[in-house]
Amino acid sequence: MKKAQFDPDKAVAGTSYPPPHDEPCRGRRTWPLTRQYGLTQFGFNRVELQPGAWSTQRHWHKTNDEIVIVVSGELVLVTDDGEEVLGPGDCVAFRMNDPNAHHFQNRSDQPAVFFDIGGRDLWDVSTFPDAGFQAKPRVEIHFRPIKP
Amino acid sequence: MKKAQFDPDKAVAGTSYPPPHDEPCRGRRTWPLTRQYGLTQFGFNRVELQPGAWSTQRHWHKTNDEIVIVVSGELVLVTDDGEEVLGPGDCVAFRMNDPNAHHFQNRSDQPAVFFDIGGRDLWDVSTFPDAGFQAKPRVEIHFRPIKP
Repeated sequence: MKKAQFDPDKAVAGTSYPPPHDEPCRGRRTWPLTRQYGLTQFGFNRVELQPGAWSTQRHWHKTNDEIVIVVSGELVLVTDDGEEVLGPGDCVAFRMNDPNAHHFQNRSDQPAVFFDIGGRDLWDVSTFPDAGFQAKPRVEIHFRPIKP
Repeated sequence: MKKAQFDPDKAVAGTSYPPPHDEPCRGRRTWPLTRQYGLTQFGFNRVELQPGAWSTQRHWHKTNDEIVIVVSGELVLVTDDGEEVLGPGDCVAFRMNDPNAHHFQNRSDQPAVFFDIGGRDLWDVSTFPDAGFQAKPRVEIHFRPIKP
């Protein structure tokens, strides 16, 4: 079967944000699908947000485009321009280097599910203006023996 | 408003396949969203398939990854491995250079809607084994005066 399976045991809970900024996203579960399909040009995740949960801290990416597609439930998109509601079948995209930070809040009483697709530039910097931090990948080189 | 709007007047009908291979896709309408959002790292489209319509001729990409996310209706995915049914919230990905051609058929009596995300490598070659052709981008250089 090629269709993705969303095993509850394979979901990643919450975020790695430094406390207390991880709190609002504790009701988030992520199914990472990129590696499962062997993709290399962009990353994609299925995300489930419980009532009250945020998708992320509000942020923007320096060198990565991003797309969000809602498949069920209701989400409030928050940007510098204000708020709008997205439901099943809605989508929105955020081009790289646009310093208009965004995130999604589930203010409803039902879970919401969306897919997130993003660029994979390792030199990206994410800026979180409300939380007051930036994030960037740390790259480490590992060595392993060549198998004869 | 940042959420995408799907104006029926802005949809692109059908495909540019050489006849008669365009026939099965006449019931397809595509909303191209990449340029609208100024994205450069990947392309994305919203696609609506009328009952009986195919998404494409069955194909695979040499150098572009692809993702399909279904938001409404029912689609039959056809690959060399056989058939499976996808509904709202389902997704599937096809990594580059995997010569297992795919497409989607709407065999239901209702329209189906999905999003398609794909790499933008201009050196990609798409192979359509059933239709018996390949497709690749033709690049032309245009010149224009520098505006002082």
